[in-house]
Amino acid sequence: MSTTGEGPYRPTMSDVARVAGVSLKTVSRVVNHVPTVDPTLAERVLAAVSELGFRRNDLARSLRSRSTSGTVGLLIEDLANPFYSTMAAGAAQCALEHDTMLITASSEEDGERERTLLLEMCERRVGGLLVVPAGADQTYLRAEIEVGTPVVFLDRPPTNLRADAVLIDNGQGARSAIEYLLARGHERIGVLSDWLRIYTMRERLSAAEAALERAGVPYRPDLIRDGLHTVPETQAAVQRMLDSPNPPTALFALNNRLTLGALGVLNRRHSDLMLVGFDDFETAALMPHPLTIVSYDAREMGRVGAELLFRRIDGEGSRPQTVVLPTTLVERSAG
Amino acid sequence: MSTTGEGPYRPTMSDVARVAGVSLKTVSRVVNHVPTVDPTLAERVLAAVSELGFRRNDLARSLRSRSTSGTVGLLIEDLANPFYSTMAAGAAQCALEHDTMLITASSEEDGERERTLLLEMCERRVGGLLVVPAGADQTYLRAEIEVGTPVVFLDRPPTNLRADAVLIDNGQGARSAIEYLLARGHERIGVLSDWLRIYTMRERLSAAEAALERAGVPYRPDLIRDGLHTVPETQAAVQRMLDSPNPPTALFALNNRLTLGALGVLNRRHSDLMLVGFDDFETAALMPHPLTIVSYDAREMGRVGAELLFRRIDGEGSRPQTVVLPTTLVERSAG
Repeated sequence: MSTTGEGPYRPTMSDVARVAGVSLKTVSRVVNHVPTVDPTLAERVLAAVSELGFRRNDLARSLRSRSTSGTVGLLIEDLANPFYSTMAAGAAQCALEHDTMLITASSEEDGERERTLLLEMCERRVGGLLVVPAGADQTYLRAEIEVGTPVVFLDRPPTNLRADAVLIDNGQGARSAIEYLLARGHERIGVLSDWLRIYTMRERLSAAEAALERAGVPYRPDLIRDGLHTVPETQAAVQRMLDSPNPPTALFALNNRLTLGALGVLNRRHSDLMLVGFDDFETAALMPHPLTIVSYDAREMGRVGAELLFRRIDGEGSRPQTVVLPTTLVERSAG
Repeated sequence: MSTTGEGPYRPTMSDVARVAGVSLKTVSRVVNHVPTVDPTLAERVLAAVSELGFRRNDLARSLRSRSTSGTVGLLIEDLANPFYSTMAAGAAQCALEHDTMLITASSEEDGERERTLLLEMCERRVGGLLVVPAGADQTYLRAEIEVGTPVVFLDRPPTNLRADAVLIDNGQGARSAIEYLLARGHERIGVLSDWLRIYTMRERLSAAEAALERAGVPYRPDLIRDGLHTVPETQAAVQRMLDSPNPPTALFALNNRLTLGALGVLNRRHSDLMLVGFDDFETAALMPHPLTIVSYDAREMGRVGAELLFRRIDGEGSRPQTVVLPTTLVERSAG
């Protein structure tokens, strides 16, 4: 069996079953994400799907195009976090320009919820997915991608899956923050991090540690706190750090929630400890505290990701690409 | 022709056509929002739809329920504004609990865009709509409501349409702000307002003016500025007000964008002019400036609205209701 690529040949699920040497029912179950399929059989089905260029059938297609235009799914971490809602606004604007509506949902940093929401979006026959992944594994999306639903990841790359991603240069951002503080004479730098299972936290923390090491600054585990996911947790950690016998002379907060937590403590203590924070926020310039920000364009990330997704939906078939957006260090407030 | 109410009788489009005395094609055009239908005929069709209790046919229903669950549309003003994204997060949480996905879009305060987006959502057979209206007239939704798509308005009531709405007590909020300032001896109070075509602005401004009048404070048109939609516009207006021969001794900003604009100017001028702002924001407590907020629960507004919508989707047929959420005055920052 061969296909001419451009020709009218359209492989069916039966073709896939024949090539994979499995039953039609097994193909259907793999394509429809039934979780109980034997992994070896699933592999064979996906290989056959890939080889034959199988796509969902025309019935599904016609259902999808019943309305005047399609939908695209957007899964972010939390709609109420300005970083993600700004990213969502960028994606929504691009979707509108493509006469497409956006189905939006929040994973709340829960991998199981991510999986449930994305597969539910796929069942609704979205034209494509924009995803900030929360879980440790995105293998479950492979079948969906193989049958023709493009997926673009935002802010964090997928795990165990080849797909497009739009990221920011976390390493460059963290390095620039540490070098900025070192240049101002700081060596006792407290670093505040969210959960290390979040990709951006791992990238930022390891780049910060590498920059400190390159500068010959001794490693001080008591100045590095990770696992801080809420503002109260962050504030307790900053309090403890400042009350320790050998407190930091500057802080580097790896995301906006951590920056706000630190600012609350510094304000209450009338401390003018130097603070650098990753992620911009609307009121940064109004802060009474000297504040330098590792800034990047969250709206642009949403827009670039959505544009890439629409090119894929329109049939662009090049290999998966990763776009990395730059960061800039900005002195937002002189305090 | 009569219906028993609870019985299995299901009126068809033909029944509607017969009762209205129009062609089937006219009924179809009214139900599907074709804009060129003669208004008198459209009225007759809608009256018949109402009388017969006509609902979209079962084919549409079955298409809607093909996937495991439904969708609901949410139209807000701007996803990147924290007030609206917090409201959206409340609605999204409620939708998830009802196994429903949210299609989200921003009107950007444009009535034409509102209409286009909502009718597009209807064409996708959403189960219902949550709407922050931007335009001056929502008559265009009447046919959709009559054929069984419930609509709940958020933050602003609809115009020329009877439907559910969840609002906040704008009058109480504005009164409490003015009384707070009067009690502290202020009589020259500058009031900053967005476009007066926005319902909440009209409500807040008129309540503020009434409270000043009740207190016997002379009317000073130079201290009232409306039409301020962007931060730069607000900043220019505040500058002018402060540089005038008889400047205000306090400011009342009628939304969060106006509050941030005013704070920027006061910060730059190192002014400690008293400021009260409508709408809470995440970093209010961190402001270097004394700041009192007319606060309310935007997430709750989204949640309450969505819960009301799901009750309507589940068939609750009571008359349209308006829920009004309270505001509280909170001293967020002592500066």
